[in-house]
Amino acid sequence: MSFFAGLAKPSDFQKTASPVMVPFKSLIQVDRSLSTPVFVQVSDQLGQLIRRGTLVPGQRLPGSRQLATLLELNRQTIVAAYDEGMAQGWLESRSGSGTYVAAHFPEVRPQQLTPEENPHWNRPTISQPGYAFESTVFLQRPVLTQSAGLRLDDGLPDIRLAPMDELSRAYRSYFRWGNPQAHFGYGDTKGHPLLREQLSLHLNETRGLQTAPDNILITRGSIMGLHLTCQVLLRPGDIVVTGETTWAGATMNIQKTGALLKTVPVDQYGMDVDALAVLCQKNRVRMVFVNPHHHYPTTVTLRADRRLRLLQLAEHHGFAILEDDYDYDFHYLSRPILPLASADRQGMVVYVGSLTKSVAPAFRVGYVVAPSGLIDELARLRRIIDRQGDPMLEFAIGQLFKTGELKRHFRKALRTYHARRDYFFNLLTSELPNAIQFTKPDGGMAVWAAFNPVVDMEKLARQASFTGLYVASGQAHNPPGQQLNGTRLGFASSTEDELEQSVLILKKLLSEGSGR
Amino acid sequence: MSFFAGLAKPSDFQKTASPVMVPFKSLIQVDRSLSTPVFVQVSDQLGQLIRRGTLVPGQRLPGSRQLATLLELNRQTIVAAYDEGMAQGWLESRSGSGTYVAAHFPEVRPQQLTPEENPHWNRPTISQPGYAFESTVFLQRPVLTQSAGLRLDDGLPDIRLAPMDELSRAYRSYFRWGNPQAHFGYGDTKGHPLLREQLSLHLNETRGLQTAPDNILITRGSIMGLHLTCQVLLRPGDIVVTGETTWAGATMNIQKTGALLKTVPVDQYGMDVDALAVLCQKNRVRMVFVNPHHHYPTTVTLRADRRLRLLQLAEHHGFAILEDDYDYDFHYLSRPILPLASADRQGMVVYVGSLTKSVAPAFRVGYVVAPSGLIDELARLRRIIDRQGDPMLEFAIGQLFKTGELKRHFRKALRTYHARRDYFFNLLTSELPNAIQFTKPDGGMAVWAAFNPVVDMEKLARQASFTGLYVASGQAHNPPGQQLNGTRLGFASSTEDELEQSVLILKKLLSEGSGR
Repeated sequence: MSFFAGLAKPSDFQKTASPVMVPFKSLIQVDRSLSTPVFVQVSDQLGQLIRRGTLVPGQRLPGSRQLATLLELNRQTIVAAYDEGMAQGWLESRSGSGTYVAAHFPEVRPQQLTPEENPHWNRPTISQPGYAFESTVFLQRPVLTQSAGLRLDDGLPDIRLAPMDELSRAYRSYFRWGNPQAHFGYGDTKGHPLLREQLSLHLNETRGLQTAPDNILITRGSIMGLHLTCQVLLRPGDIVVTGETTWAGATMNIQKTGALLKTVPVDQYGMDVDALAVLCQKNRVRMVFVNPHHHYPTTVTLRADRRLRLLQLAEHHGFAILEDDYDYDFHYLSRPILPLASADRQGMVVYVGSLTKSVAPAFRVGYVVAPSGLIDELARLRRIIDRQGDPMLEFAIGQLFKTGELKRHFRKALRTYHARRDYFFNLLTSELPNAIQFTKPDGGMAVWAAFNPVVDMEKLARQASFTGLYVASGQAHNPPGQQLNGTRLGFASSTEDELEQSVLILKKLLSEGSGR
Repeated sequence: MSFFAGLAKPSDFQKTASPVMVPFKSLIQVDRSLSTPVFVQVSDQLGQLIRRGTLVPGQRLPGSRQLATLLELNRQTIVAAYDEGMAQGWLESRSGSGTYVAAHFPEVRPQQLTPEENPHWNRPTISQPGYAFESTVFLQRPVLTQSAGLRLDDGLPDIRLAPMDELSRAYRSYFRWGNPQAHFGYGDTKGHPLLREQLSLHLNETRGLQTAPDNILITRGSIMGLHLTCQVLLRPGDIVVTGETTWAGATMNIQKTGALLKTVPVDQYGMDVDALAVLCQKNRVRMVFVNPHHHYPTTVTLRADRRLRLLQLAEHHGFAILEDDYDYDFHYLSRPILPLASADRQGMVVYVGSLTKSVAPAFRVGYVVAPSGLIDELARLRRIIDRQGDPMLEFAIGQLFKTGELKRHFRKALRTYHARRDYFFNLLTSELPNAIQFTKPDGGMAVWAAFNPVVDMEKLARQASFTGLYVASGQAHNPPGQQLNGTRLGFASSTEDELEQSVLILKKLLSEGSGR
């Protein structure tokens, strides 16, 4: 920094405005080994000198020939660097008298330092708005995060199994295509045509649905499907029924519309449809939210007679069934149970699914299957939310369906999770026989575990986290007044070795009386 | 197909259930030159035979040794193929007696043919829902699409200029990173940390803002920023003011909340702030929506004294200013005009921007800049809409900010669009002097053109489309009762040659009296 020492202060420059006082040769360093063009290097460094105050507004710069000589560069390089500065607005040319630092540049000078220079970087400059707004109470729930260490999570996939190389290749092929106007302009709000077509085939083949692409809206995760459906079908005061308890993402979306939430019990055969029938006699029910395949959080499957009854009630009372089939691809019985939507002949079911659990959460691809008129309306609403999905992502997933890669991945993941479920079940049975009650789930990626009532789950979760194990307290799943003390213990994202370590940590904490 | 001719019908098979009657050697073809593993090929083709009815539920398959001999394959290959079928649930093993087509397979048989086989493919199977729902009238607007031919569009970027190779490389580097759990799990609802940090620096440097990453929410296009802000700040009955006319994406989002929309005139200096002041005396205004930089659709810039007055009114009356700065990066005066947000000291402004116009519409990256408390609330709402953005995309854009690629692209695009604006202005002046009125816009990507009142714009747009030229009728921009007859003619996405062809088509249609 010593060569700055004897320099005049910026205010002095402004008076004299003499270019020769600035030691350009020391201040501007060109490195030909960089991929950045030399004229860009010169122009960037001129910009920095202005931002730092070394060059000041209105100051005249050396002529291009003079600066070229000083820096031992071609004159055209300096001309190009000055052009850059003018295009960016911090240099200006005055006809006949050369190039100047723009007179009004101070208005665009940075008013915030870089992170390295500013100790208050993480403190927002404006922390309070001048206008009033209310926070919505029901949205204030803790965020679920995915830990990179040991975890018995909510039932997330093992991302290490996902076909990343194939996805990366599909992305690359999208970028390599010829006409950028056609591939990177506005696309179809309902989703990339390839994915809608492939998904339609996949759903018909694996789930017994009868869809055409017109029945499908590609969304960003199943939650967007729930959001759009609730916004379109529900009005303030409408009555919506869910099982007790159910997924917070659904209840928050129902509450957001101003609809009234009523619940019916869930037992080992799923939602109590008799209780629903009674409720329907006294109330005009608008929608029922249900996970027939694996109820969230308890993983139970809706029994066949109840499924039939639920559809009949919907037809009789005219309510919509919002079927959230978040983990259909992972079922371990020899005969998969088909979605309600596959038996729906009157169009009562809006079917929502996702690839989040089947590939990885970052690939935000979900879908809604519904009569085409509703799909059109959902898409109209979506236009004012985010306009459309990500065509690169939608193409890549569509491509992996087409080549069969994705189906192979599903089969591989199914086999792996099946083995992990069995291993985990045996572990829990042998290591924690008295501390928790659980059944072997027929499908999905988590075991629903009811802990001994003496265990303080909040405390247990906290103490587990000190040892590097993530486990949820399950607070969200235990309604006030009930003493379930249950939580979900996800087994799919961990190897057998990781599952064993995790269960042994839980065993140790419980035997030490932790969490009581 | 001839070898099918003499075969028994599926129903006959069911009775006899003898595996030897099926000509496996003809029906299963293995191609070793494919990358698909041989066992997968065999298993896929067995699945097809079942789906087609050649193999029927409950039918016994040949032993693995027998089928291996028939197909001249290794026995382990057949064992693996049968395992695949069992994992998929369409084969089952009965202990001691071999492998069978699953007895209950019919439940998952496809009920829909492939597109090639089904002439009704595009007709949805369920076209009417059994429950009632209302379509929202204000959402029924035509969709803007991006044409690949000649166009004078709404003001879209020329995607051919975008740094596609660099973006593709940044995507690839994201895929190549080590720990998939960390990169493809759930991410931050507010956006990828790299992009929030880089965007904060960029906004402070180019727009005179004073942001920290905590003040920034990454969204999917600016429309999501508008949507979230309207949903959080507005309640039914609130009064919101916009210019007359304004962007439909904003008015639809305001209407969606149940707020009441009031308008004030827009002249050549932007929104009439005096009219707003009068309106504020009689009404409790909750929010004002404005594009100070380039008003949409007319491209005028809000004059300095009006900007100051608008901020003062907001502070005095306590309303929020929703500043949509959709094309800030493209301004052609030597001195850019800073956003309202840069002069906002009381936190009255919610600033919304986008990279849609700066890179390409498919890269759905927008942002909201606001006090951190509002950013937190917007993120809580976003969790129930789509949970988070696309981390690959957000990382790639953040990376291109960091390397300087994006700034270089902005400068290149600015120079190109500047030249195109001048060229287009000269073309309109020389070729269509009497047919339209227009001024040279100081920035943005379109000219606002008021056509001679005798021109029927709907007809002109239709006739232009017959010649392969897209031009909007501008219907959406011309409120009933006014006789603007105006539309936006975008110049940025066309080369000079394309602009010339387009203007000559317009000239020919107008001189032939078309559109009258």
